[in-house]
Amino acid sequence: MKLRLFALSMLVLTAPALADEGMWTFNNFPSAEVKKKYGFEPTKEWLDQVRLASVRIAGGCSASLVSADGLVMTNHHCARTCIENLSGLQKKDFNKEGFFAKTMADEPKCPAMEMNQLVEITDVTKRVQDATKAVTDDKFAETQKSEIAKIEKDCATSDEFRCDVVTLYRGGRYDLYKYRRFQDVRLVMAPEDAIAFFGGDPDNFMFPRYDLDMTFVRIYGADGKPLKNDTYFKWSAAGAKEGDLTFVSGNPGGTSRTLTVSQLEDDRDYRLPQRLFRLSEIRGLISEYQNRGPEQKRHSNDTLFGVENAFKALKGRHGALADSAFYGKLKANEEDFKKKVNANPKLKKEFGKVWDEIAALTKKNATMRKEYGALEGGPYSDLFSKARTLVRYAAESSKPNGERLKEFTDSRMPQLKAQMLSNAPVYKELEIAKLTWSLTKIREDLSPDHPIVKKMLGVKSPAEVAKALITGTKLDELAATAKDPKTGKPMADTTSRTALFNGGAAAIDASKDPMIEFARSFDAEARAIRTKWENEVEGPLKKQQEALAKARFAVYGQSIYPDATFTLRLSYGSVKSYLEDGREVKPLTTFAGAFTRHTGAEPFALPKTWLDAKPKLNLDTPFNMATTNDIIGGNSGSPMVNKDREVVGLIFDGNIQSLGGDYGFDESQNRAIAVHSSAILEALEKIYGAQRIVDELKGKAGSPAAGQP
Amino acid sequence: MKLRLFALSMLVLTAPALADEGMWTFNNFPSAEVKKKYGFEPTKEWLDQVRLASVRIAGGCSASLVSADGLVMTNHHCARTCIENLSGLQKKDFNKEGFFAKTMADEPKCPAMEMNQLVEITDVTKRVQDATKAVTDDKFAETQKSEIAKIEKDCATSDEFRCDVVTLYRGGRYDLYKYRRFQDVRLVMAPEDAIAFFGGDPDNFMFPRYDLDMTFVRIYGADGKPLKNDTYFKWSAAGAKEGDLTFVSGNPGGTSRTLTVSQLEDDRDYRLPQRLFRLSEIRGLISEYQNRGPEQKRHSNDTLFGVENAFKALKGRHGALADSAFYGKLKANEEDFKKKVNANPKLKKEFGKVWDEIAALTKKNATMRKEYGALEGGPYSDLFSKARTLVRYAAESSKPNGERLKEFTDSRMPQLKAQMLSNAPVYKELEIAKLTWSLTKIREDLSPDHPIVKKMLGVKSPAEVAKALITGTKLDELAATAKDPKTGKPMADTTSRTALFNGGAAAIDASKDPMIEFARSFDAEARAIRTKWENEVEGPLKKQQEALAKARFAVYGQSIYPDATFTLRLSYGSVKSYLEDGREVKPLTTFAGAFTRHTGAEPFALPKTWLDAKPKLNLDTPFNMATTNDIIGGNSGSPMVNKDREVVGLIFDGNIQSLGGDYGFDESQNRAIAVHSSAILEALEKIYGAQRIVDELKGKAGSPAAGQP
Repeated sequence: MKLRLFALSMLVLTAPALADEGMWTFNNFPSAEVKKKYGFEPTKEWLDQVRLASVRIAGGCSASLVSADGLVMTNHHCARTCIENLSGLQKKDFNKEGFFAKTMADEPKCPAMEMNQLVEITDVTKRVQDATKAVTDDKFAETQKSEIAKIEKDCATSDEFRCDVVTLYRGGRYDLYKYRRFQDVRLVMAPEDAIAFFGGDPDNFMFPRYDLDMTFVRIYGADGKPLKNDTYFKWSAAGAKEGDLTFVSGNPGGTSRTLTVSQLEDDRDYRLPQRLFRLSEIRGLISEYQNRGPEQKRHSNDTLFGVENAFKALKGRHGALADSAFYGKLKANEEDFKKKVNANPKLKKEFGKVWDEIAALTKKNATMRKEYGALEGGPYSDLFSKARTLVRYAAESSKPNGERLKEFTDSRMPQLKAQMLSNAPVYKELEIAKLTWSLTKIREDLSPDHPIVKKMLGVKSPAEVAKALITGTKLDELAATAKDPKTGKPMADTTSRTALFNGGAAAIDASKDPMIEFARSFDAEARAIRTKWENEVEGPLKKQQEALAKARFAVYGQSIYPDATFTLRLSYGSVKSYLEDGREVKPLTTFAGAFTRHTGAEPFALPKTWLDAKPKLNLDTPFNMATTNDIIGGNSGSPMVNKDREVVGLIFDGNIQSLGGDYGFDESQNRAIAVHSSAILEALEKIYGAQRIVDELKGKAGSPAAGQP
Repeated sequence: MKLRLFALSMLVLTAPALADEGMWTFNNFPSAEVKKKYGFEPTKEWLDQVRLASVRIAGGCSASLVSADGLVMTNHHCARTCIENLSGLQKKDFNKEGFFAKTMADEPKCPAMEMNQLVEITDVTKRVQDATKAVTDDKFAETQKSEIAKIEKDCATSDEFRCDVVTLYRGGRYDLYKYRRFQDVRLVMAPEDAIAFFGGDPDNFMFPRYDLDMTFVRIYGADGKPLKNDTYFKWSAAGAKEGDLTFVSGNPGGTSRTLTVSQLEDDRDYRLPQRLFRLSEIRGLISEYQNRGPEQKRHSNDTLFGVENAFKALKGRHGALADSAFYGKLKANEEDFKKKVNANPKLKKEFGKVWDEIAALTKKNATMRKEYGALEGGPYSDLFSKARTLVRYAAESSKPNGERLKEFTDSRMPQLKAQMLSNAPVYKELEIAKLTWSLTKIREDLSPDHPIVKKMLGVKSPAEVAKALITGTKLDELAATAKDPKTGKPMADTTSRTALFNGGAAAIDASKDPMIEFARSFDAEARAIRTKWENEVEGPLKKQQEALAKARFAVYGQSIYPDATFTLRLSYGSVKSYLEDGREVKPLTTFAGAFTRHTGAEPFALPKTWLDAKPKLNLDTPFNMATTNDIIGGNSGSPMVNKDREVVGLIFDGNIQSLGGDYGFDESQNRAIAVHSSAILEALEKIYGAQRIVDELKGKAGSPAAGQP
């Protein structure tokens, strides 16, 4: 591995001192710093326009509006699930073959894809912090949750809006993010997986790179028509070249840059290794499962992709913490922080014990982890998750908003409902494999003698239990449409997922569905361990982390960025080479390089469309691009724009050195990787014949309606 | 997990202070300490008799002679490979069904099982250390290897003897171990896997336990007749009960109790996690491979068992190092040691820098690890290993003994030859799965652009390469016996493994076997990285470790035991309960408990023989037993004897708390787990009708010849 992160900056402890570091919130962006380094100062209006042209995919990616008619650009790997679902529904393999809707009428709806546009940010710190001021540690989590539910409900005046109170600086600040919510998203164009993910797992997180990791979808309004929107990113004619200033607007999923050393140690020695052991095992299992046959390969591709991607990302993080120089720097940062707190009697009195308190809570957390994972995390199975949600939805939806489990509060309901009633296909054979494995792991974690394991398995083996549950359940079915052969009337539907979702507690209580019975059987125990954890770990930890954030503001000031939280952030940087093993890695690749790398064997086989189109292509077209923007998982699909807010690229990855970015940023080597805007146009036009999209991106008159029936 | 090792002793740094700690060499056994604690003092004659009744299975287990006619007792899991091989050859499933040879004539030969009896130990420290006294660091490994080869060759006067120079105290002492070598070992009796490994992976390393993990084999002499031997263990009439003194004589494979903190850190942060990631992945893969069908399940069982066992053992070790209290203690031990060295000017001058030197070499080692693993470790495939051995055997066997790679020196040849010409079956389908996976991992480690990866794969995928190599090779075949249909004469055999083994360099050079070509294609590069590693890491590290051992002797005296080295050791202890989560775990289980634990579903399903025999059984028969003996992997199959040298048990496991035993021993919780001697007799007699074995164990007149044809 090439993980070198020695020249680590001071991270979030100090202002970034001209390093391109930081995943900045839109209401605390260091415009002056950018001006100092790059000579351009983003104004409030500029920031507002960028924010409104950015959209988040609620499932865990970023995207952007790129036309006035709701056209959205994101990564192929962010739309994989939609592509696989549509393949299953239409008995095709769009992942393998690619997809292009010739006209708007041909754009099929992605099952359960939600997009959010951030329309307003409001500071609610005082309200949230005041609510918990007087409560004891064990009531902290519950009290805060209840207050947050109220704020969110007041904000989300209709299903059109989604409101989330976002915990920034791990409790130093609470902002209310109000989003416009879009639930009708349709697939427009996706290239073949072979070029979207050219190089596959071996090249994942590597550079140089040659991936067309793009997909276009379109947002439709409640009226079933393409969204009309004023604010979107226009296309850059030239794209970016080496040295150009670049901005990335997206939703980094999470970082751990402000964890204490005791938490880092827990990550290094326990949390990351354990997750990696499990990911490795399921990786081996699914890889071999793919040998069962072509359909099994097709329907498990998305799962395998997710597993391999997570494995490599977390392995990189573990590698960073295992690097004694890197880890030593993180320890030194904490020492510096502590020294500064202890040097000030007032701060010492108020915050001096925070680190020890967090260490104790981290130890306590470790003791609950396995039970929590097995019971509240629950077995690894989509149908189990659906059963769990049905059981809890029936119970929670009848409670007052503030008393519900947080995933069932009013502001979460529209997304939940869409997911539960989505027609995304379920593959029972894969479900059996996953559930069998997962039950084995739960038994391994808790021991065969644990009462819950006995309840789950009885005297059967994990394979027997999994097979019985998955083959017996009807939760893969939506509303039954069968008609009575005699009367011709619709049959009474009491077993489908739709019926159980709409039927409330009575339907759930009466259900004989084996998966519902299974989920019910340990729901009380799962809730109990969750409550215990929330009261004894989560709440007290939130309180300590609020204190730590206050200490950090006191010592280092307000011009710092918070850890990532899968909310909209802006990072700045430039197209820039870097050194690897003493050798310069240039920041731009070309189409020609992809043809050189082509061997013909997966995952280095270019699709036929590319081989056929080669004579027509400008092989000097820039393909992928490395920049110093500070990003992390969740940023996938983010637009990369220039100072004129024009698209110059599409973020899809980071280099291998950037994987330690969870814990710290090193401008000398961390690189964000994007598809160059020119590559997108060249491919759409000359390889995929997607002229209507090109015209729409270029804002040509008449598009996109030209293609409409 | 229940890993608690807080009350860790001072390990090997001090005399064991009445803790039952230590895997003692037979020529430095602390008899006086045993007398102090248990009132019994083993004499030299007692130790000699125990040594001679103990045998080692060269492949990695322990065993013991239990009759005058060469009957040997070991674990079922130590004979699994033999059982699986014989099943493949005879198209049976003896692993599932069990095996019992009704008469001696029915005892089939295990392919390539070698046993060693330790007949003499000679101190050769001066000779080995003197040889390297004047050489530079980079010549250390080569010079020492050459001297050791000479000593071993002088000692092994015929194939009947095997001589190994054993590095004790990581270089503090070198002893020449002379073994009698037995290469004709035959299977006598094995119970069903379902009871040998009752509880399977979930109960592995757990206690209470209910496993009949035993197998009997018999050593035959060169004359094809059962070995006549004077020295063997007699059977205890009563077995052991709580509080009884117990000795375990066996071959612990390796411990890491004298590693420096820099080496421990490398284990915790790099070596163990990396191995565990790989083991997890292959575990998932083989688990799913077993779903291909019953034959695939049968022939991959042994592989899966090995993988799961290693995973659990190494995970326990990682868990110990990840335990900050345990790790802190190891650090404190080193601090104490360093302080004592530095307090003495002479010692400080001579040894003060050793720790830093070892730390630097550990870092250097880390930089070579991936290339070394991929090239010199080589792909994971039995047929590749055979090809590699054939290629190297042809080259090495023509060199002078002292200049060969150490696995090809004269004293290693008999075992090598037996392995290469063994008729153990090879399963090509499993080989393809393993090799495909392994090539993928090599590409992952080295990157697709590494010249060796390009050489291995060319423009093909790992799956294509693996399939072509495995289906194309003839290395699974022994000497061809086909006859020319016209002449009736034997066909010329140039392709079988036998032909290539006997044909020398000319045969190898001329071979068009694809696996031979593959192995040849990167042999030079593999040898180069090995030489580099030996000269730049192994040799210098050996030198530093010799120095560290001398420092340890100087500070703590000679009454300490060396780290385990898969050579014969004796440990003492007693049958004893322990506390787990505040609850006392009794040290003995009974047959009745096994029936209680039986659910009917794998791996908690007792075999039919047990269910049928239940009415006849004495359900109060002690089954498994926990003792304070200090053991580790490699000790499997070790006899447990009382002070009268009678068998009271058969070691097969340690409890979960003992897994940290690689790094340190905690008498309060570490337990060795054995099958009780009474369980063995009861089962042989009442379940398996193996009266001839019972008679032989009891030394009844007429046995075992009674059963002979």
